[in-house]
Amino acid sequence: MPRSTDVHAQAPARGRLPLRSVGLSSIRKPLVIERPGRSHSLAVTFRVAVDLPADRKGSDLSRNAEILAEIVDRTAARPAESLESACSAISRELLARHRYASEAFVEASAEYFLRRGLSEERRSFEDYTLLAEARAVRAPDAGAATVHRAVGAEAVGMTACPCAMETCRARLVAEYPALADRAFDDLPMISHNQRNRTRLVFELDGAAEVEVDDMIDAIEAAQSSPTYAILKRGDEGQVVLDAHRRPRFVEDVIRELLLSLPVRFPTVPDPVAVRVSTVSEESIHKYNVEASHRTTFGELRRGSA
Amino acid sequence: MPRSTDVHAQAPARGRLPLRSVGLSSIRKPLVIERPGRSHSLAVTFRVAVDLPADRKGSDLSRNAEILAEIVDRTAARPAESLESACSAISRELLARHRYASEAFVEASAEYFLRRGLSEERRSFEDYTLLAEARAVRAPDAGAATVHRAVGAEAVGMTACPCAMETCRARLVAEYPALADRAFDDLPMISHNQRNRTRLVFELDGAAEVEVDDMIDAIEAAQSSPTYAILKRGDEGQVVLDAHRRPRFVEDVIRELLLSLPVRFPTVPDPVAVRVSTVSEESIHKYNVEASHRTTFGELRRGSA
Amino acid sequence: MPRSTDVHAQAPARGRLPLRSVGLSSIRKPLVIERPGRSHSLAVTFRVAVDLPADRKGSDLSRNAEILAEIVDRTAARPAESLESACSAISRELLARHRYASEAFVEASAEYFLRRGLSEERRSFEDYTLLAEARAVRAPDAGAATVHRAVGAEAVGMTACPCAMETCRARLVAEYPALADRAFDDLPMISHNQRNRTRLVFELDGAAEVEVDDMIDAIEAAQSSPTYAILKRGDEGQVVLDAHRRPRFVEDVIRELLLSLPVRFPTVPDPVAVRVSTVSEESIHKYNVEASHRTTFGELRRGSA
Amino acid sequence: MPRSTDVHAQAPARGRLPLRSVGLSSIRKPLVIERPGRSHSLAVTFRVAVDLPADRKGSDLSRNAEILAEIVDRTAARPAESLESACSAISRELLARHRYASEAFVEASAEYFLRRGLSEERRSFEDYTLLAEARAVRAPDAGAATVHRAVGAEAVGMTACPCAMETCRARLVAEYPALADRAFDDLPMISHNQRNRTRLVFELDGAAEVEVDDMIDAIEAAQSSPTYAILKRGDEGQVVLDAHRRPRFVEDVIRELLLSLPVRFPTVPDPVAVRVSTVSEESIHKYNVEASHRTTFGELRRGSA
Repeated sequence: MPRSTDVHAQAPARGRLPLRSVGLSSIRKPLVIERPGRSHSLAVTFRVAVDLPADRKGSDLSRNAEILAEIVDRTAARPAESLESACSAISRELLARHRYASEAFVEASAEYFLRRGLSEERRSFEDYTLLAEARAVRAPDAGAATVHRAVGAEAVGMTACPCAMETCRARLVAEYPALADRAFDDLPMISHNQRNRTRLVFELDGAAEVEVDDMIDAIEAAQSSPTYAILKRGDEGQVVLDAHRRPRFVEDVIRELLLSLPVRFPTVPDPVAVRVSTVSEESIHKYNVEASHRTTFGELRRGSA
Repeated sequence: MPRSTDVHAQAPARGRLPLRSVGLSSIRKPLVIERPGRSHSLAVTFRVAVDLPADRKGSDLSRNAEILAEIVDRTAARPAESLESACSAISRELLARHRYASEAFVEASAEYFLRRGLSEERRSFEDYTLLAEARAVRAPDAGAATVHRAVGAEAVGMTACPCAMETCRARLVAEYPALADRAFDDLPMISHNQRNRTRLVFELDGAAEVEVDDMIDAIEAAQSSPTYAILKRGDEGQVVLDAHRRPRFVEDVIRELLLSLPVRFPTVPDPVAVRVSTVSEESIHKYNVEASHRTTFGELRRGSA
Repeated sequence: MPRSTDVHAQAPARGRLPLRSVGLSSIRKPLVIERPGRSHSLAVTFRVAVDLPADRKGSDLSRNAEILAEIVDRTAARPAESLESACSAISRELLARHRYASEAFVEASAEYFLRRGLSEERRSFEDYTLLAEARAVRAPDAGAATVHRAVGAEAVGMTACPCAMETCRARLVAEYPALADRAFDDLPMISHNQRNRTRLVFELDGAAEVEVDDMIDAIEAAQSSPTYAILKRGDEGQVVLDAHRRPRFVEDVIRELLLSLPVRFPTVPDPVAVRVSTVSEESIHKYNVEASHRTTFGELRRGSA
Repeated sequence: MPRSTDVHAQAPARGRLPLRSVGLSSIRKPLVIERPGRSHSLAVTFRVAVDLPADRKGSDLSRNAEILAEIVDRTAARPAESLESACSAISRELLARHRYASEAFVEASAEYFLRRGLSEERRSFEDYTLLAEARAVRAPDAGAATVHRAVGAEAVGMTACPCAMETCRARLVAEYPALADRAFDDLPMISHNQRNRTRLVFELDGAAEVEVDDMIDAIEAAQSSPTYAILKRGDEGQVVLDAHRRPRFVEDVIRELLLSLPVRFPTVPDPVAVRVSTVSEESIHKYNVEASHRTTFGELRRGSA
């Protein structure tokens, strides 16, 4: 007698093995968010998953796609507050519809455009990356789930190397005796410089809200210079000179960024964790140079991060 | 008076902030390894990094490139035992030459070819991915560093969906009354099937050695079927039928793989951790389905993973 | 005496070598287009370039970025008609501002979302790719430039293999004698099936306009089946069975698509060229299978493409 | 009565449509080539295809995989002369085994390592890309097929911008009056500099042989500077200064490279076509700048390319 059983709900063929995470990845959806003074239509890549108990063969993955469709599609009519608020809502709904799951995971990234420029008349759209995560944990007593959120951004800027600047200056003096009487810090500021990608993520467990545009500002301030789509001839020189006046190793980018956070984000509570990573696509090597760190606002405020 | 100071060794401009990791990434090197009966020339992508204390501005990154060159380049004359043994050696040398560091990290991945086929006369090279990691931790008393190693592999195979097979069968019966008298399990085995990529990593802290070819065998046995470059017309049918006789969700792939490990690797000690992840590039969706888990050989042996 | 010369306008250091193309690539911009009944905010990747005469050292690339900013940024307030109309406008403006150039090239691609589903209540956003090109050629007599346009789309769907279906059926009969009395075409429709990406581009020189949503429809009709984000359990079976009722080699996908074009696009003139390419990410192999062709509407209508 | 017909050899279901290209792509194989004084084990990505006449439903793709296996796998025992000679052999064999085809196409790319360094004691492996193509055309009179070959290479190096150097100098003079009495060309050589990828391909129809290492040398000589894995502190300064003494737009890279070819490759015949493309991953922009050209050795020798 034919039947169509719910294969997912069956017991696994053998063994008793719970799984940490089962879900969808690389799923693309359009999400509209409302920002002060404007709305943004984002093309978001989502990963949405839940854990799976040992006594169940499969996770009901069509529910993940349905939840995404409901929450994401309706932002076309009523924009979400932010990418991370959408992720939080999705993580709660995942727990609600996967009754057997104890945790739900959502990760999202999207390209994001801001009008920026070296001056007012040079402004045009620059591209950044928005990041958001949410992890919902089911309460033991059927209470409301706890949602651990993270919000982040990535910006591409420029780094000029402090070390090569030193050695270039030493070589210049050796080759050009006319420069020998100059103070070292007055010597020409030649160095290698390159694209740098820096990522900043805040693990916001509680109610703290941060403005992601401020996170992008913080990143760009920590690089040797922001970069711009429109640079007329004089502007190029200014960006290059500015960058060489702030030469930065990847180590410097991380530290400058972290040290700036307590001042830029005074209302973020001490327990909030901070993840930073940075990659310089070295112009003098075929490989990249990178650095990363994880600390908390509290440690940064106590000066012991 | 000009000078060429060691900029890296200076104190940071401000703050006291140690960093978890500073190093090189996306650096490509050719590495020769000796396997039973043959040597393999691998094109390896390395990440090599160390931590950085708060009182030092920069990490001496040219040492990382030198260590790689020394250890990797000399395998052209004298092959390494394995990718992970090369990573271990690199991690020890990183600690030796970065005296200020307390930890060193090495990650490596490389394409790897094995001659495989549905039958002896169909054998040709199939491509896999080798993975290795090493983390060296400096001993507090100037003793030898402890090295935590990981070895892994990734294989592309095929999964056929168990759920769609059920619903296809139910629909077939509804549309073809002639099938109604057949036992359900004798009904046609139609389903969607797709590329699956599965990754297996062992965190081998101690002296245990595993043969990475055995890890690849374990992965392929957990998928619905391995895939092959050469399939003559009759062979295609055999692979398709074999895969549909072993329909597997991503959840099944993970569980079958984990449950097979105690038998396949009896000498690996209980504390060794196992990481598994799998991705099915769904043929009926534009997105992927994935699952992952982390456990230990001990938990797998106790049946409580 | 210091100076700031226009380096680009200088003569090259040596040789007399014109260059075919100099420009910007991988530049990302947000573009708003107006479609019937709705507007779409696209994140577009542009390539914008012009040729360079032998007597000029460099191309004024900041103009390319300015043109993009002007034309693209203003669509935030006043949407463009289409991606290809924006490309045409950009190509004309490139020629206008690079007085030394005789040709200008623009290429654009963008993700594009349409609400689709197996049924009305299953509809959600599916992701596609829009493509557009424009090549402006300066008129010899200072007249208006000629613009050669192309518009295209790419859709991901599913193919089921006709050949493996034959051999699976033959094997089934051999293994299950009970099936021996069945007509071959009534045998179970088992085969391998996989993701297929198919791209269709029309080289529209003249005034013809096509609706890109119709191009996406044409692609999906040529694959074994479209694919959907939301498939409840019964739906999966339907998509799988539908796909196996239309088994398609990559050769079939190309031919079905090309043969459908004269009927679907009756107003497109004969000289319009058509480019088609398709890639099946084979589930039974680690490699892809692909096919491509280029013809014209005229040849397709004459049955001699 | 069940049957297993050769589905590929059937007539297409409808229409009469020949196809330009049907084949395999993204297939990875290990290939051993013999170079003067050493052998290289390459991990090659192949595309192998043939055309298809209108009266045939499908191309026999398993033959493509078999040919690759035979020709590529046997180089483990007997190395090929070069990547392009292997491609030529594969293209001939494709025509031999696809009797219905009139053309066969092979494209290959592979990572390639050479020991290079700023000085003898700094030498280590640097990574490059090898490229090869072969197109075999069936002779009308059943004679031997004609094979059109191409050989190429890509190298990553560094470019320093000539224009920003000018404007930086002008700004420096404005800000530092002490520099005002210096000749402009004695002013500091500060500019933006970045990774540059340049590709050179020769379309060698006849018997001409070129050494691909010489093509890599030509590319690196056309960039502002090669880049190296190992640069000790003094070396970095030298590479940076060298690069700024040879500032190069992408236009300059293309022209310097093309103009160097008649001298570097005196035996390559006039009809041989040359394709060059270059991409600078701008440090002051988030986008790339690129240039490309196609000409012949004859035109380059006549000074009219």
